[in-house]
Amino acid sequence: MSPDVAAPLPRVTVWNEYWYEKNVPEVARLYPDGIHGAIAQPLRDAGFPTRIATMDEAEHGLTDIVLRATDVLIWWAHKRHDDVSDAVVARVAAQVHAGMGLVMLHSGHFSKLFRLLMGTTCTLNWRVDGQRERLWVVAPHHPIAAGLPAHFELEREEAYGEVFEIPEPDELVFISWFKGGEVFRSGCCFTRSRGRIFYFRPGHETFPTFHDGNVRKVIVNAARWAAPGLIERRVPESVLVEPLEVF
Amino acid sequence: MSPDVAAPLPRVTVWNEYWYEKNVPEVARLYPDGIHGAIAQPLRDAGFPTRIATMDEAEHGLTDIVLRATDVLIWWAHKRHDDVSDAVVARVAAQVHAGMGLVMLHSGHFSKLFRLLMGTTCTLNWRVDGQRERLWVVAPHHPIAAGLPAHFELEREEAYGEVFEIPEPDELVFISWFKGGEVFRSGCCFTRSRGRIFYFRPGHETFPTFHDGNVRKVIVNAARWAAPGLIERRVPESVLVEPLEVF
Amino acid sequence: MSPDVAAPLPRVTVWNEYWYEKNVPEVARLYPDGIHGAIAQPLRDAGFPTRIATMDEAEHGLTDIVLRATDVLIWWAHKRHDDVSDAVVARVAAQVHAGMGLVMLHSGHFSKLFRLLMGTTCTLNWRVDGQRERLWVVAPHHPIAAGLPAHFELEREEAYGEVFEIPEPDELVFISWFKGGEVFRSGCCFTRSRGRIFYFRPGHETFPTFHDGNVRKVIVNAARWAAPGLIERRVPESVLVEPLEVF
Amino acid sequence: MSPDVAAPLPRVTVWNEYWYEKNVPEVARLYPDGIHGAIAQPLRDAGFPTRIATMDEAEHGLTDIVLRATDVLIWWAHKRHDDVSDAVVARVAAQVHAGMGLVMLHSGHFSKLFRLLMGTTCTLNWRVDGQRERLWVVAPHHPIAAGLPAHFELEREEAYGEVFEIPEPDELVFISWFKGGEVFRSGCCFTRSRGRIFYFRPGHETFPTFHDGNVRKVIVNAARWAAPGLIERRVPESVLVEPLEVF
Repeated sequence: MSPDVAAPLPRVTVWNEYWYEKNVPEVARLYPDGIHGAIAQPLRDAGFPTRIATMDEAEHGLTDIVLRATDVLIWWAHKRHDDVSDAVVARVAAQVHAGMGLVMLHSGHFSKLFRLLMGTTCTLNWRVDGQRERLWVVAPHHPIAAGLPAHFELEREEAYGEVFEIPEPDELVFISWFKGGEVFRSGCCFTRSRGRIFYFRPGHETFPTFHDGNVRKVIVNAARWAAPGLIERRVPESVLVEPLEVF
Repeated sequence: MSPDVAAPLPRVTVWNEYWYEKNVPEVARLYPDGIHGAIAQPLRDAGFPTRIATMDEAEHGLTDIVLRATDVLIWWAHKRHDDVSDAVVARVAAQVHAGMGLVMLHSGHFSKLFRLLMGTTCTLNWRVDGQRERLWVVAPHHPIAAGLPAHFELEREEAYGEVFEIPEPDELVFISWFKGGEVFRSGCCFTRSRGRIFYFRPGHETFPTFHDGNVRKVIVNAARWAAPGLIERRVPESVLVEPLEVF
Repeated sequence: MSPDVAAPLPRVTVWNEYWYEKNVPEVARLYPDGIHGAIAQPLRDAGFPTRIATMDEAEHGLTDIVLRATDVLIWWAHKRHDDVSDAVVARVAAQVHAGMGLVMLHSGHFSKLFRLLMGTTCTLNWRVDGQRERLWVVAPHHPIAAGLPAHFELEREEAYGEVFEIPEPDELVFISWFKGGEVFRSGCCFTRSRGRIFYFRPGHETFPTFHDGNVRKVIVNAARWAAPGLIERRVPESVLVEPLEVF
Repeated sequence: MSPDVAAPLPRVTVWNEYWYEKNVPEVARLYPDGIHGAIAQPLRDAGFPTRIATMDEAEHGLTDIVLRATDVLIWWAHKRHDDVSDAVVARVAAQVHAGMGLVMLHSGHFSKLFRLLMGTTCTLNWRVDGQRERLWVVAPHHPIAAGLPAHFELEREEAYGEVFEIPEPDELVFISWFKGGEVFRSGCCFTRSRGRIFYFRPGHETFPTFHDGNVRKVIVNAARWAAPGLIERRVPESVLVEPLEVF
């Protein structure tokens, strides 16, 4: 195919709870610009207008104005799920329902936001072992797998194990193999009302995962995939309708 | 196949907000034993141990003891969604996650419980017109369609119209045709953690829908389908696990 | 989103059995440039490189060279399914498996090609009545629904009725309402190995369906959606692999 | 739930190409009663009326009479896929479309029958290494997982690797972890017209897999799950229908 026609660049907001980098030297060393900084880099390199928002800003940095100007929200959090305000969670969920894309990373599986959107417990098993993870592409045709090899490795990662309590994903893109004996559905696509959601497993704060080239490729691909296209952004509402013309 | 082996009978709880029957004479006339009474009748005829719970009982009649002794909960509500306590909703959702089946009827689509389990707005269009609805079976092999004709009619029903803002159902069993020009995904199967959920569209309080033989057949089939089998009922939890034996 | 980045234009081949236009005056009058001509017009207007292939050409016009230069194949056929050579069907299916998109129109549901790709009988009920069809968008966020109203009408069409014997679609985009009392899953998305498939119901030869603006919009959207992206086109093969490096 | 009501016992036919047992001493030693004998044992223990059919019988033992008296067909084959007659494949597929269940084991993934029903290439990667396989239950609520632990091991098995070129399964029940570094979607549910299909990965002829208690449990559960219920067995056909009564 020839590249003749303009396609839009999604406007991305990277959200980070931003606690470990300020409190755990090992994490600060790995992510001197914050985990959000490492996530944002490849998005900016791809030309996507990318902004940062973090927990301690007013309204967690996720005001209505910010969200309405966001095509795709990327979310990293681990320790402080309970500190996220219910009002902000409801506001973000409403924008997903209206069409905003969401990329949920790693321990974000247990955020209020993700559990609200899944309707399940989103629980799983885990082990902090720092051994090898191998991610297999099981849907090579999927836009989120574009440019990836058949599998790629992270030398040191936390292990997650099944059962991951999510609804059956619309599409399963990655399955992880862990040296320690577990498997995990690591790349899962969902749609909730008009919004696309991608869950991506890797990204424990004590490992350099977000500096990995393949992980960065997934994040850029996922942002492109989750973007809402040119639909009007509108939270669905119940409507009492008039009779249609039938004849 | 020969009927040689014992299969379990699901224990059903029929929940009704139970307002219209006490406040609207037309509804009282149609449902002298309450909407719950009409729903419970075919379940009892099928031999299922069936109890009733209603909004105005303590804890809406849905105590932990009741829920743990319930294999399938059937839910009818319309006017008083907001009056259902969040604590009870969370308790019921936890039991669905643990394996309890749920059959959500008609305007229950907009209950707190259903929206929580779907992760979407669950909005739709509607018109109270009382014209003909025709339900088409689109999955004739599905246990919920057992014993039904290719389509069946309700002479007078409220019209619902798409878009019904739900996640793509795991299986779509019925699509409704309305004389007034709408269509609707009227029989939708979901799984949320270990629990099965069936949404069934018909059942407006001002029509005799729950006295209809085909509707009753669907309700009995759905209760049988949604029952959790012989699994241990347990709300999934996150677990920090020990290393596995690998070699 | 701002339109800054180049996206590819899919190369489309429109395939037509091309019999009715040459044998039935009514159809010749409706489609003076052939049904393929009417289908190709909006694709060309969208700038997609579009070629035509028809049944009576050598190898039905679907040589390896043509297929390898095709990103999306659009298929219309009705009367002559059995005359399509098995070798060409196998060749086309292999290209779908390798990543070529396929848009199957109307009575193509019963082509050898579609049945091969679905693995089901693809049977349905039908009535040639020429009454009103109303197509409801049930997935407004889907790229194939871009730019469409909530529903659109075709004043005269053939009626199809459920059960449409297909596997549960990955995504259901349209449901049709027919004045005569039927419903039908009219816009269905599938993936088969690396290839995307869209089935679209309307298009009976005795009605001016392919001159309708909304139908044309669907065809252009579907071609864009089904295009394989920048993946390498390769028919999947079984591979005896070497041991991986595990440590 | 109390076990008060009779449920049917599926009538099972176990089909085996039955070549290795007669030609490879190692396999004969592992399966003195044939692979089919080992598969049939737990089904008979469960009380299911179970018959055997093999490749070298007339019509491969799969006459119309046998198939019509079969609720669930279990299929093991590896070396002789090409020797199965197209007529028998079509006959079996038609019965699946009509409602017969199918459990496809291990290398049956590449049988004509399975590829016909999937509509994809059904290719995968493989390695005969005889190392440990661990099967994880990812859908613990699923009837096919009833009575199984969270994971179970086969000390020696052939390794299969992704990409397994199948349509996205309706439900994914097992994922395999292989010591050699692969993962595989090892338990996959599909529906094709009215018939349920379960693919189960393990079962290489040079390993004692079909003597394993957990594998046997899966086979019995799968046969129970795939059974068609009390539907009328009928191959779907296209039907020209009469107008419906609309008013």
